[in-house]
Amino acid sequence: MNVRRILKVLGYVLIAEAVFMLFPLIVSLIYEEFFNLKAFGITISILAVLGIILVNIPVKRKNFFLKEGLAVAGLSWIVISIFGAIPFMISGAIPKFIDAFFETVSGFTTTGATVFSDVEILSKGILFWRALTHFMGGMGILVFLLAFLPSSEKSIHIYSAESTGTKALKVASKLKNATLYLYLIYIGFTLLEGILLCFDMPVFDAICHAFSTAGTGGFSTFNNSIAGQSSYVQVVITVFMFIFGINFSLYYLLILGKVKEFFKSEELRAFALIVVGAILIVSLKLLSVYDSFGKALQYGSFQVLSIISTTGFFSAEFTVWPSLCLGVLFIVMFIGSMGGSTGGGIKVSRVAIAYKMAIRDFKKTIRPNKVSLIKFDGRIIDEGEERGVRLFLVSYFGILLISTLLLSVFSGNIETNLTASLSMLSNVGPAFGEIGFSGYYGFLPNASKIILCIDMLIGRLEILPILVMLAPSAWRFK
Amino acid sequence: MNVRRILKVLGYVLIAEAVFMLFPLIVSLIYEEFFNLKAFGITISILAVLGIILVNIPVKRKNFFLKEGLAVAGLSWIVISIFGAIPFMISGAIPKFIDAFFETVSGFTTTGATVFSDVEILSKGILFWRALTHFMGGMGILVFLLAFLPSSEKSIHIYSAESTGTKALKVASKLKNATLYLYLIYIGFTLLEGILLCFDMPVFDAICHAFSTAGTGGFSTFNNSIAGQSSYVQVVITVFMFIFGINFSLYYLLILGKVKEFFKSEELRAFALIVVGAILIVSLKLLSVYDSFGKALQYGSFQVLSIISTTGFFSAEFTVWPSLCLGVLFIVMFIGSMGGSTGGGIKVSRVAIAYKMAIRDFKKTIRPNKVSLIKFDGRIIDEGEERGVRLFLVSYFGILLISTLLLSVFSGNIETNLTASLSMLSNVGPAFGEIGFSGYYGFLPNASKIILCIDMLIGRLEILPILVMLAPSAWRFK
Repeated sequence: MNVRRILKVLGYVLIAEAVFMLFPLIVSLIYEEFFNLKAFGITISILAVLGIILVNIPVKRKNFFLKEGLAVAGLSWIVISIFGAIPFMISGAIPKFIDAFFETVSGFTTTGATVFSDVEILSKGILFWRALTHFMGGMGILVFLLAFLPSSEKSIHIYSAESTGTKALKVASKLKNATLYLYLIYIGFTLLEGILLCFDMPVFDAICHAFSTAGTGGFSTFNNSIAGQSSYVQVVITVFMFIFGINFSLYYLLILGKVKEFFKSEELRAFALIVVGAILIVSLKLLSVYDSFGKALQYGSFQVLSIISTTGFFSAEFTVWPSLCLGVLFIVMFIGSMGGSTGGGIKVSRVAIAYKMAIRDFKKTIRPNKVSLIKFDGRIIDEGEERGVRLFLVSYFGILLISTLLLSVFSGNIETNLTASLSMLSNVGPAFGEIGFSGYYGFLPNASKIILCIDMLIGRLEILPILVMLAPSAWRFK
Repeated sequence: MNVRRILKVLGYVLIAEAVFMLFPLIVSLIYEEFFNLKAFGITISILAVLGIILVNIPVKRKNFFLKEGLAVAGLSWIVISIFGAIPFMISGAIPKFIDAFFETVSGFTTTGATVFSDVEILSKGILFWRALTHFMGGMGILVFLLAFLPSSEKSIHIYSAESTGTKALKVASKLKNATLYLYLIYIGFTLLEGILLCFDMPVFDAICHAFSTAGTGGFSTFNNSIAGQSSYVQVVITVFMFIFGINFSLYYLLILGKVKEFFKSEELRAFALIVVGAILIVSLKLLSVYDSFGKALQYGSFQVLSIISTTGFFSAEFTVWPSLCLGVLFIVMFIGSMGGSTGGGIKVSRVAIAYKMAIRDFKKTIRPNKVSLIKFDGRIIDEGEERGVRLFLVSYFGILLISTLLLSVFSGNIETNLTASLSMLSNVGPAFGEIGFSGYYGFLPNASKIILCIDMLIGRLEILPILVMLAPSAWRFK
C-alpha cells in the first residue's frame, strides 16, 4: 500500500472540506449567529493546516492501484466525518463526540438518521451544515476532487471506489469532461428544486430541503419533516426524490439529445416499474386510511419514493399504516435506487443482474450443456462484473445479519435491530420497531451508534472500500 | 417431461404412505380409540387403490432425468400432505382442510408449526400420526422408496432432489448399500433416544418425542412442549438434537471405523464451533434470568440446539429472553444444521462455501490475476457446485422477502412476517413477533397458511424441485 500517496490525497480532501465549511460560516454571518463563527472558524483552521501539511508530504513511488483507491475512499469518509463533527461540538449543539460523529456520518452518507429529537431549536448555521453534508455526500467528495486535482494525482480508481452501482451504467465516466457535466446536472436539479420550493417555503428551508433531496439524505429543518408542509411542497419533493433516484449518466444522454437511448435503459424501466407498482399497491391499500384516492396517492407516492430513493423524509406516521404498506416499504428499502444516482440500497441494476444470474443458473442446472450469457442494458455482463454483484450481495446480507446480532448485544428486538441495520446499510434513515418513521437514534447506547456508523459508511461506499481497509493483507507494504 | 413415469413413481409413494399409516391404526387399536379406525381405514383404502392404479400405468419411454427427479420430489411431498391431512379431518381433530393440510405439511417437512392450541385433548392415534409424519419426513419418503423399488424404477436423481445439503458431503450416497446403512443409523438413534426417554416419560410420549427429535420436527404431545419435563429429559433431547443435526454420512464413517475422518470433517468442525459459540453467548447472557450457570446452560443449550437443528421444541418462553439471546437464535435460524442431516436451514456447508467464495471473490477483485480454488472438506468445489450454492442463496433470500411481503397482504408486522417466513423456510417452527415460542399458527388467515405451506415445502426440498414444478419450460413434452 502506498501510504504516502494516500495521505497526500487525504490532505486534498481536508482542504476541500475546509472550503465547503466556509458556506455555513457565511450563513452564520448572514443570520448574525456570531456564536457559530468560532465553531466553524476553528474547524476550518484545523482542516486547512492539517491539509496543507499532508499535501506537502514527499511521495517517492507513484503507484496507485485499485486497493489504494479503495483505501483512500474509505479513509476519506471517516476523516471528513470526524472533522465535520467538530462544529456540532464547539457550538454546543451536540455535546458528546459520538453523537456528533453519528450525525455527521449520517449526513455525509446521505442517510438522514439523527440524534436530534428537536431540530427547530438549532441555529441556522448548524442546520445549514447538516443539509450541506447531504449535498456534499450525494455528489461524492472524492469525485468532486477529481475535477480539481492536478492531473498527476488523478486516478480513475478513486472514482470507481466511490461512485454507486455496477459498472453497467457508468456510461458517462468514459466520456471527456463527463464528471463536470454530471455536477452541472446535479447542481442544476438542486437549484431547480430550491426555486420551486421557494414558492411555498422560506428561502433558507427551501435550500436546506433541496440539498437534502439532492443527496437523497433526509435531514429536515422541521421536527415533523415534510408532514406539516403544503401539498404543493410534498408533490415537488416527491418528483425530485424520483429524479435524484435515477442514474445521472442518463440525464447526460438527454443533454446529448439521445432521448431514445434514455428511454431504452433497462435499469430505468425496471426502476420505474418498481416505483409505479409499489406506489399503486401502497396507495390502493391507503384508501382505508385516507378518504380520497388523491390523498392516498399523495401520501403513498411520497413515502414510497422517500424510501426507495433512500431519502427518508416522511409526510405521515407511515409506521402505523396497514401491514401491506409496511411490507412494500420494507422490500423497497432493500432495492434502493438506480446505480449512478445519489441514492443507496442494493441498487436496481444489481437486483436485475442477480435475478438474471439466478435464472441462468437455474436453467444451467436443469440443462447443464446450455450456454447462455447475461445481458443487461445491451451489454454482456462479464465474469468480473458478475463477481462484483455476487460479492456485494453476499456481503450485504452477511453484514446485515451480523449488524443485527451486534446491535442485539445492547438493546432492541429483532425488528428494531434488523430494520435499523437495513436502513443504515441502504442509507435511508427511518426504520421499523422502536426507531420508527422519524429516524431518531439519539436514545441508543454509544456502542450501537458506532455499529450503525460503520453500517452507514459500508452502505455509502458500497462495501468494498471498507473491506479493503479491514483486510490486513491489503496494507502490506509493497 | 416424462409424465407417465412421474405418475408411476407417485403411485409407489401413495402405497408407501398407506403402509406407514397402518402404524397409527395399530396405535388406535391398542388404546381402544375405535373412532379413529374409520379415519385411518378410509385413508389407507383410498391411498392403496389410487396407488395401485398409478403404479400400473403403462410407461412408454424410460427417460428419467434430473428435472423428472425434481418434479417427482416436489409432487410427492404435496400429494402425501394432501392425503396425510385426511385422517385429521375424518377424525374431527381438524375440521377445516386448509388447517389439516398445514399441519401435515408442517409434519412431513419436519417444521413443527401447528394449528392446535391444545394438543393434550387429542387422541393417541392422531398424536402418533403427527409424530410419525416427522419421522417419515426426516428420513425422506423418496429415499426410503429407493431402497425398496424395483431397480428399473430407481434413479439417483430422486435421491439428489430430496436429500439435504450440497453434494460436498454426500459421501455415503456413492457407497453400495449406503442408503440402508443411513436408515439403520437413523432408526438406531431414534430407538436409543426413545429408550432413554422412557426412564422419565410414559412410553407413548417417549416414542412420539423420539420421532419428533429424529426428524428435527418439533411436534410435542404436551401443550408446553418440553418445558414441563424433568432436567433429565431436557438434557437427553438436547444431546439428540445435536446428534440429528450432524451429517449422517459421518456416522457411516464411524461405523467403518474411520474415526479420524469423522473428526477431520470441516463441516462438522464449523457446526460444532457455531453451536458451542452460540450456546456460550446465550448461556452467559441468561445468567441475568436464571440463578445458576447450570440452569442457564441447560436452558440456553436446549434452545440453541432446538433452533439450529431446526427442531423447534421449547423448554422456556425464550421470546422474552434478553435481546442478545434473540439475536443469536435469529442468526442460527438462518444457518441451520449440517447437510445430509434431517435438519433444515441454509446448512453449514453452504454458509461455509459461500464464505469462502466471498473471500475468493474479494481477493480476485483486489488482485485480478490471482487464481485460487475453493476447497471444502478436502474437495475442490467445482463450478457446478458453486452455481448450486449461489442459486440456493439468491433464491433463499429472495423467497424470504417475497414471502414476507405476501404475508403482509393479510396481517402482521415486519417482525412477525419475516421471522415466520424464515422459520418455515428453515423448517424450524417457532418464530418471533405475534407467533412466538410455541409455534402456534392457527389464528392466521387461510391465505397466510397457504403461503407458509409453500415456504415449508420449498425449505424442505431445498428450493430446486419447487422451482422446477413452477417452471413452464420444464413441463414441455420432449
